Amino acid sequence: MAPTSKAWAVVAGVGPGTGATVARKFSLQYPVALLARNPDNYEPFVKEINNAGGKAIGISTDVSDANSIKNAFQKIESEFGSHGCAAAIFNASGRFFRKSVLELSEEEFTAGYDVSCKGAFLFSQAALPHLLKVAGDSSTQHPPTLIYTGATASVKSNALMSSFSTGKYAMRALSQSVAREFAPKGVHVAHAIIDGVIDIPRTKEWLKDQPPEAKISAEGIADAYWNLHIQPKTAFTNEVDIRPMLEKW
Amino acid sequence: MAPTSKAWAVVAGVGPGTGATVARKFSLQYPVALLARNPDNYEPFVKEINNAGGKAIGISTDVSDANSIKNAFQKIESEFGSHGCAAAIFNASGRFFRKSVLELSEEEFTAGYDVSCKGAFLFSQAALPHLLKVAGDSSTQHPPTLIYTGATASVKSNALMSSFSTGKYAMRALSQSVAREFAPKGVHVAHAIIDGVIDIPRTKEWLKDQPPEAKISAEGIADAYWNLHIQPKTAFTNEVDIRPMLEKW
Amino acid sequence: MAPTSKAWAVVAGVGPGTGATVARKFSLQYPVALLARNPDNYEPFVKEINNAGGKAIGISTDVSDANSIKNAFQKIESEFGSHGCAAAIFNASGRFFRKSVLELSEEEFTAGYDVSCKGAFLFSQAALPHLLKVAGDSSTQHPPTLIYTGATASVKSNALMSSFSTGKYAMRALSQSVAREFAPKGVHVAHAIIDGVIDIPRTKEWLKDQPPEAKISAEGIADAYWNLHIQPKTAFTNEVDIRPMLEKW
Amino acid sequence: MAPTSKAWAVVAGVGPGTGATVARKFSLQYPVALLARNPDNYEPFVKEINNAGGKAIGISTDVSDANSIKNAFQKIESEFGSHGCAAAIFNASGRFFRKSVLELSEEEFTAGYDVSCKGAFLFSQAALPHLLKVAGDSSTQHPPTLIYTGATASVKSNALMSSFSTGKYAMRALSQSVAREFAPKGVHVAHAIIDGVIDIPRTKEWLKDQPPEAKISAEGIADAYWNLHIQPKTAFTNEVDIRPMLEKW
Repeated sequence: MAPTSKAWAVVAGVGPGTGATVARKFSLQYPVALLARNPDNYEPFVKEINNAGGKAIGISTDVSDANSIKNAFQKIESEFGSHGCAAAIFNASGRFFRKSVLELSEEEFTAGYDVSCKGAFLFSQAALPHLLKVAGDSSTQHPPTLIYTGATASVKSNALMSSFSTGKYAMRALSQSVAREFAPKGVHVAHAIIDGVIDIPRTKEWLKDQPPEAKISAEGIADAYWNLHIQPKTAFTNEVDIRPMLEKW
Repeated sequence: MAPTSKAWAVVAGVGPGTGATVARKFSLQYPVALLARNPDNYEPFVKEINNAGGKAIGISTDVSDANSIKNAFQKIESEFGSHGCAAAIFNASGRFFRKSVLELSEEEFTAGYDVSCKGAFLFSQAALPHLLKVAGDSSTQHPPTLIYTGATASVKSNALMSSFSTGKYAMRALSQSVAREFAPKGVHVAHAIIDGVIDIPRTKEWLKDQPPEAKISAEGIADAYWNLHIQPKTAFTNEVDIRPMLEKW
Repeated sequence: MAPTSKAWAVVAGVGPGTGATVARKFSLQYPVALLARNPDNYEPFVKEINNAGGKAIGISTDVSDANSIKNAFQKIESEFGSHGCAAAIFNASGRFFRKSVLELSEEEFTAGYDVSCKGAFLFSQAALPHLLKVAGDSSTQHPPTLIYTGATASVKSNALMSSFSTGKYAMRALSQSVAREFAPKGVHVAHAIIDGVIDIPRTKEWLKDQPPEAKISAEGIADAYWNLHIQPKTAFTNEVDIRPMLEKW
Repeated sequence: MAPTSKAWAVVAGVGPGTGATVARKFSLQYPVALLARNPDNYEPFVKEINNAGGKAIGISTDVSDANSIKNAFQKIESEFGSHGCAAAIFNASGRFFRKSVLELSEEEFTAGYDVSCKGAFLFSQAALPHLLKVAGDSSTQHPPTLIYTGATASVKSNALMSSFSTGKYAMRALSQSVAREFAPKGVHVAHAIIDGVIDIPRTKEWLKDQPPEAKISAEGIADAYWNLHIQPKTAFTNEVDIRPMLEKW
């Protein structure tokens, strides 16, 4: 099915999980750019979307690097045109070090922030002018949307988790500041607290003794993001939590 | 359009605003019962839904009265059959007294709790056995859903607002306890923080100097509730906020 | 040691735990009134404080009953004079029913609210005029203080806990509304989240295999309340959490 | 008055405001080290404390630099001995850029995090071994305490404030993770939300038309920190808010 809109969507942090599934969902309406450091992480999905009649490109991008992000958006515009961005999804996460505060190196500690927050900032800064273009275009169907993927650690900071949670708390702060600045300009900004294990190849062996409802489906996340995207200007949701039916919280 | 499901939906707290619009939305798939104290509040919408090919009944109900609630659910079952409840939406609010703590009578103070929390409890207790019936029925399409309509005052308690906010905070506590108890049994429980002025006949003169995006559309809320309802067991949202694009928060 | 101030303190919800210990602490500076339903709960502490050179009275009071509360404050004024209230501590809790939402009777469900929130409202309404008197008296040493004792369930509502948590969430809402209304008038209002098992006779057998640091000392709470009381108008704390060193949170 | 303890205290982020006042307060019991980038910021207070009979040193330190922090703690130990740290207060804040997300440079955006969070991490990592030494020493009077100074922006992220709030949210995450890891080892970790304008030379002209109770007194903060420090192991407070009586919140 060919995308019905000229404005494009972009997903940063694509791998065989949430990112790919979100890209697939948004590709039903938009040309979509898939960003990941490693081409192996987006290539199969770019192919799959194009084979299905969609329009997708993959761009090797380091979201914590300003130039890399800048180049990615130039590439998107040169491929998809300057019709503006209908949806930008930041789904990247920093590396994860389950370690005592006493044992973390400075590099390990800041790794979470560098991607989750600085990356989200660089991505937002690059995406917002394109989102504002769509906001000002009365012919578009849905308000342009900027979504950040958070985690349990966005609102709870456990022992040994500081390198991860500091980045996620900071990303949530960024999302709220961006929402308050750009909602009045017509951009819908939302933060999702993904609370649980996502059911992806990497977590196949986790929670094996439990029924499927113990894990979050990537499709469920993608549908939730799409439903955020189609909200009208009169009813923006700025934060959702998403967890499987069997999650303790 | 005739409802496609035998399981029914129920909306408590119907008036010419959110309640009616939510009922209209859910009537596209379910027979729907509209509950309000005053028949004037539901009669036009019952008629409208039935005229449109849907199936609706109205029941005069005082949600703060256990017997009244009990009678309402017996009436629903006798009209719609014992196919169970697919969606129960608690949308009632206690009366509102903008007064100093020193000037509130005991009756005024408890009025908020009596409807917003005790009413929500009585409604939940009556609805849950019917929701559990649908949860155990593998032929139904969406997990049965119980949604509570909250407000800004569910998470912020301002001066002079105690009679309202105490009821709303308490209702949020109820929703979280019910969610944690019944999600593992397959019932999707969600709480919505409606943050802003809803665009209904009663608020027509409010914010008149502002564009339409300063108010929340009841349709936006109804769509958000429907999108909660269709979430799968692997991706339940337990809390959403909803505000118009121009709301300060 | 005789109290050094004419303004008095009042503690509602006295038993052999937090209430008695808080009363003892405040009796070092103020004549203090101890309120409880059952005289057995305050008599030993009234005696103890008076024997130690303090000045204490006990009043049998049902905090969920407006007349009972009214009578209590009239009794206090007739005994201690109309010098105003320096500190009012609401420490009462509703009865506790660990039950499914489906099994709670209406009376059981509302029992938490009736004491924790309606009681707190009636107590606040009765105490505030006396607190305002002290606020307007430049000769007093510390800003008059109104403290509410909350619990883990004030901010987290677990399964089977709805009768308790709804009352505690509502009390927290009350405390915030009262704080915002009366702080500008010079009354210091604070809410304490007591997160853990308090070390009192009733909990002697609990956590027996753990070191003493697994429980909260009532003295620790009393000291924290006193330290709230002596904060100046330029540095009010409106919420504290208190937990023992070994508590998981 | 000479300090009565051998264990020492350290305050990072000293200037003519909270930092200096906190240092003065803790110098009544402990030898105290004052850390700031610019010696002008600590020299007058080091002199003042030593003149008053206390024991103070100042160390020029860049808290966002691991080596600078490391050198500071070596200097402290060589001056005050290896008796351990009784209290470590992190009071530094990153630079502040009130700017749109679209106008912040990468350096400006990360400046908040670099000090508020990375600095807090480096400081915690350096201080914790010394705090643990005191935790294991049964002769010390109060549990060793690590306090982080937060702000309104630690829990609310407004438009144009992202460079500041992202650092403060992240610091709060750090404080909670450190608290959960080290409380069971006897270290008291607390985070303070300073909500309002602090009354210091730099803010002299602010809120000039308002009474003194519109600003927070640095003494009020210092007293609150001391009261956190003297809490026993059975009653730790992990978060306090502090605001002046006239603050809107």
